[in-house]
Amino acid sequence: MKILIVYAHPYEGSFNNAILETTQSSLASSTHDYEIIDLNKEGFNPVLRKEELKIYPQGKFLDPQVGEYLKKLKAAAHLVFIFPIWWGGVPAILKGFFDKVFLKKETYEFKGLRPVPKLKNKSATVISTMNSPKLFYSLYLKSPIKQTVIKSTLKVCGVKKVKWFELSRVVSVSNKKRKKMLAKIRKYFSKL
Amino acid sequence: MKILIVYAHPYEGSFNNAILETTQSSLASSTHDYEIIDLNKEGFNPVLRKEELKIYPQGKFLDPQVGEYLKKLKAAAHLVFIFPIWWGGVPAILKGFFDKVFLKKETYEFKGLRPVPKLKNKSATVISTMNSPKLFYSLYLKSPIKQTVIKSTLKVCGVKKVKWFELSRVVSVSNKKRKKMLAKIRKYFSKL
Repeated sequence: MKILIVYAHPYEGSFNNAILETTQSSLASSTHDYEIIDLNKEGFNPVLRKEELKIYPQGKFLDPQVGEYLKKLKAAAHLVFIFPIWWGGVPAILKGFFDKVFLKKETYEFKGLRPVPKLKNKSATVISTMNSPKLFYSLYLKSPIKQTVIKSTLKVCGVKKVKWFELSRVVSVSNKKRKKMLAKIRKYFSKL
Repeated sequence: MKILIVYAHPYEGSFNNAILETTQSSLASSTHDYEIIDLNKEGFNPVLRKEELKIYPQGKFLDPQVGEYLKKLKAAAHLVFIFPIWWGGVPAILKGFFDKVFLKKETYEFKGLRPVPKLKNKSATVISTMNSPKLFYSLYLKSPIKQTVIKSTLKVCGVKKVKWFELSRVVSVSNKKRKKMLAKIRKYFSKL
């Protein structure tokens, strides 16, 4: 299976980076084929400019990185998103990945007022970290990542099977607990 | 009253631009003092880099635009955010405004694990547009803008009084209806 990992943390000493490395090493010892888009390292510009917005409805783009990423997105059978939750949502650089790469005609289309998915036969794994407690995020904020990334983006475009690892309080829990989180991720990917 | 408008649409022919102009002209004939941050026109870079993330907890920054914006943010008594909803959330350029300008120590602080607001005596108006129907956004997606921008960002930082104009189906409603939306906004700002 072709797997595309989209990674969105700027600091290589972060827990997100440990998650990326765990994911990578699990997949390296599997039969899957994987590649990584490291948005920060690759210097992705997340801003959708006026000239780009104009041709967005035709599924067209100007930024050559968008072309590369779109090709990888379409070729993958499984998508993995690894990112920290900032202010309840994804970092700007990942938001721009959705704004710019998830083009109309390529990832969805409209039949009248109804969106029709164009990304077929794909599944996804979403791994998010946050410092907030889980109940604050799920009960009080109604899990914005689930509502936006999973329901409003991936599912609308046809990626229906999504597994979400919601890692909370990552800054304040013990090292032992963080290692447990990584072990769970390792186990999951080794069985993917 | 000092008002700061943060505007995040790249295209000057958009309905968002009509909202901006309506807001501006209403405020121009009031006694309020206002200024506009046009994120796209000002070429704001929404990416929080590794070097910036490192000094973020000290309330420090490297991008000079962040310094300017932070000064304006702190000086304003009322904040206005005008933006389109893309994939359930704010455009990347506005997400980056929160990621980079809403610095720790400047907009919030921690007492143990509890966030303590640092932006005091401010109110806000949030004006969002979308093509989706209102019920899809509120019932099915649980209003992510309310959960992230309003509750998880503004309220956490102390901006408790927030009025939200949630303009839906802006692409498909009649011109008459769009004019009505603008009239409502004009009336609101003329009474602010």
